[in-house]
Amino acid sequence: MKESRIIYLDNAATTRPIKALETLMTEYREDKWYNPSALYKGSSEAEADMAAVRKTLLDAVGGYDRQAVFTASGSEANNMAIFDAVKPRESCHFVFSAYEHAAVYACAKMLMDSGHEVTFVAPDERGVVSAKSVTDAIKGNTVLVGVMHVNNETGALNDIDDIAAGVKAAKKDVHFHSDGVQAFLKVPYSLSGHVDSYAVSAHKIGALKGTGALLIKNGAKLRPIILGGSQEKGMRAGTENTFGIAAFGCAVENFPADDAHIFELHHRLIAGFGKLEKVVVNSPTGDGLYSPYIVNASVLGVRSETLLHALEAKGIYIGIGSACSSKTRTNRIHDALKLSPERGESAVRISFSHENTAEDVDTLLETIDSEARFLRMFTRR
Amino acid sequence: MKESRIIYLDNAATTRPIKALETLMTEYREDKWYNPSALYKGSSEAEADMAAVRKTLLDAVGGYDRQAVFTASGSEANNMAIFDAVKPRESCHFVFSAYEHAAVYACAKMLMDSGHEVTFVAPDERGVVSAKSVTDAIKGNTVLVGVMHVNNETGALNDIDDIAAGVKAAKKDVHFHSDGVQAFLKVPYSLSGHVDSYAVSAHKIGALKGTGALLIKNGAKLRPIILGGSQEKGMRAGTENTFGIAAFGCAVENFPADDAHIFELHHRLIAGFGKLEKVVVNSPTGDGLYSPYIVNASVLGVRSETLLHALEAKGIYIGIGSACSSKTRTNRIHDALKLSPERGESAVRISFSHENTAEDVDTLLETIDSEARFLRMFTRR
Repeated sequence: MKESRIIYLDNAATTRPIKALETLMTEYREDKWYNPSALYKGSSEAEADMAAVRKTLLDAVGGYDRQAVFTASGSEANNMAIFDAVKPRESCHFVFSAYEHAAVYACAKMLMDSGHEVTFVAPDERGVVSAKSVTDAIKGNTVLVGVMHVNNETGALNDIDDIAAGVKAAKKDVHFHSDGVQAFLKVPYSLSGHVDSYAVSAHKIGALKGTGALLIKNGAKLRPIILGGSQEKGMRAGTENTFGIAAFGCAVENFPADDAHIFELHHRLIAGFGKLEKVVVNSPTGDGLYSPYIVNASVLGVRSETLLHALEAKGIYIGIGSACSSKTRTNRIHDALKLSPERGESAVRISFSHENTAEDVDTLLETIDSEARFLRMFTRR
Repeated sequence: MKESRIIYLDNAATTRPIKALETLMTEYREDKWYNPSALYKGSSEAEADMAAVRKTLLDAVGGYDRQAVFTASGSEANNMAIFDAVKPRESCHFVFSAYEHAAVYACAKMLMDSGHEVTFVAPDERGVVSAKSVTDAIKGNTVLVGVMHVNNETGALNDIDDIAAGVKAAKKDVHFHSDGVQAFLKVPYSLSGHVDSYAVSAHKIGALKGTGALLIKNGAKLRPIILGGSQEKGMRAGTENTFGIAAFGCAVENFPADDAHIFELHHRLIAGFGKLEKVVVNSPTGDGLYSPYIVNASVLGVRSETLLHALEAKGIYIGIGSACSSKTRTNRIHDALKLSPERGESAVRISFSHENTAEDVDTLLETIDSEARFLRMFTRR
């Protein structure tokens, strides 16, 4: 399969690594590959290189009073923040939005299995989570609230500062965590003091899979999930993925600051869907309620996976919700969004990168229309 | 500092990534970067690429009845195997060698803190762990025995098949785990049926930091440490580090099969140390008792770190034990080896790769000799 023929519109699943990583690999092999934990100059330089990337990540979200702990994924970063909040030998209460990524939801399930209590807060009719609904859920033994910044299936943009402020006003010692994986660099954001931890991932912005980070407050010290050496100030053992970390920094520095192009693609797609028969948009479209990078829509009468493969045959890659969960699909997210069964089973996700063009969107719209007309002829109901 | 002037002899800490990774990055960026969990062809190809690397790893240790679970480090692989053995709500007993890597030792400490019991078995006077000493430690509630294959500080080669066979004969439901990080490809080995899990790491053989694997039996299903999506058959959530994994496979395929060169370097170094005044070798040197990749020696009267920096000033990088622990140094390993305080505080580690030459060894020996003569003039005792 020639990659040049693919129109890739599943950038929320992963992005193509940027070209600059080729040069970076050559530089890395030259003299940047030393073990940062060793004691000679090459190692202290490797540690300084990592420190520079930490600063790059933090600067990108205005987190000057923060530290960045590197992980192998956004999932691991989410796990670290959540499990750190558990108080040994106490029954704790957690609050999560009902449409969190599997990395958070699986932690919530584990907490429930371990005897803790979890409240899931549904998004409102606009598709976003309200501060009031979260604050109302807080109890005397609530230890952590987790609300994702941008929903990975719909692009819904939650006002996490507003939510976090509400949480802290209700109970000031609650840890507020946000999964920022789909938001990082993609929505303008500066970390507020109420957000205690923020998870990010490298491969959603043009760097490599296998690198993530948890941005936490200076001085915070999380219990490690992976035990061993004293890397990451004792919060995460194992030799650091120094090339992946360098690539992460490189991708942040190269990420286009101007999101006007993505908004254009988004508006073109939403407008185009409006002209198609039997297509309904499941993402919020109100001002300030969405990331332009992700659009979820139901092509009624055509099952998601059928449409995905029909488009694939025409050289177009799209997603059906989270790639992480696509092989073990449940309706948890659709239930949270209160999608009808018809909308739920025909929901697809289109997600952009700066490599996409208006022509990509037009080709997608034309292809969805023609394929859907054809496929609906075989629909049983 | 020009890297061309460095003689790098700390390959047990990490190795320089192989040149082939530069080409690999270019290929990867072309059309191998898709998310393996998505549903289109690019993704199933990414999954197939990972499957090929799993097979490459397993073939390298004759593990045809095995599966490889990718992790972010050898440390994570060790953690996964060890914590999976804990039986909820039971007091369990574990046996470890007394000179395990920090990734295992930290797990052992956590187990003790959680109310479980741990027995540490010291190596014998030869510096290796005997099957009898391990078997004698097994009790009715022993659930896991962990003995590293090659010790990372001394290069001692433990006969893990013999130990594992003894363990299984004593109590057949005990899980036998081995940290194979310093052994993988570096000592001839084919996994025996008694070894239940084996941890390996990519960056010790010319691939990248941030990739490891746990080799376990087919059908075994470990509890995940990182929760979320169903990657790695539900055993480890988070989008897979597909580039790191590809690099791991590439490095295995490119690893020199012939270890004669490393044995030559080893013999040259041991012989050279024999001619130096006040230098004693702490590594086993008997047939079959060592990996030729690692030599530990004490340059008496010169503190380890002092010698390290003196050599660094001459462009030679060596180690002082595990890089992972070098900044939080304790005498745990030296105690296990029953080194005298004088030997312990002057112990250094020299570790080879196939890039090293006989000239490197000669330069090292000459430089140690001259530096030690100079530095001893300032020794207080």
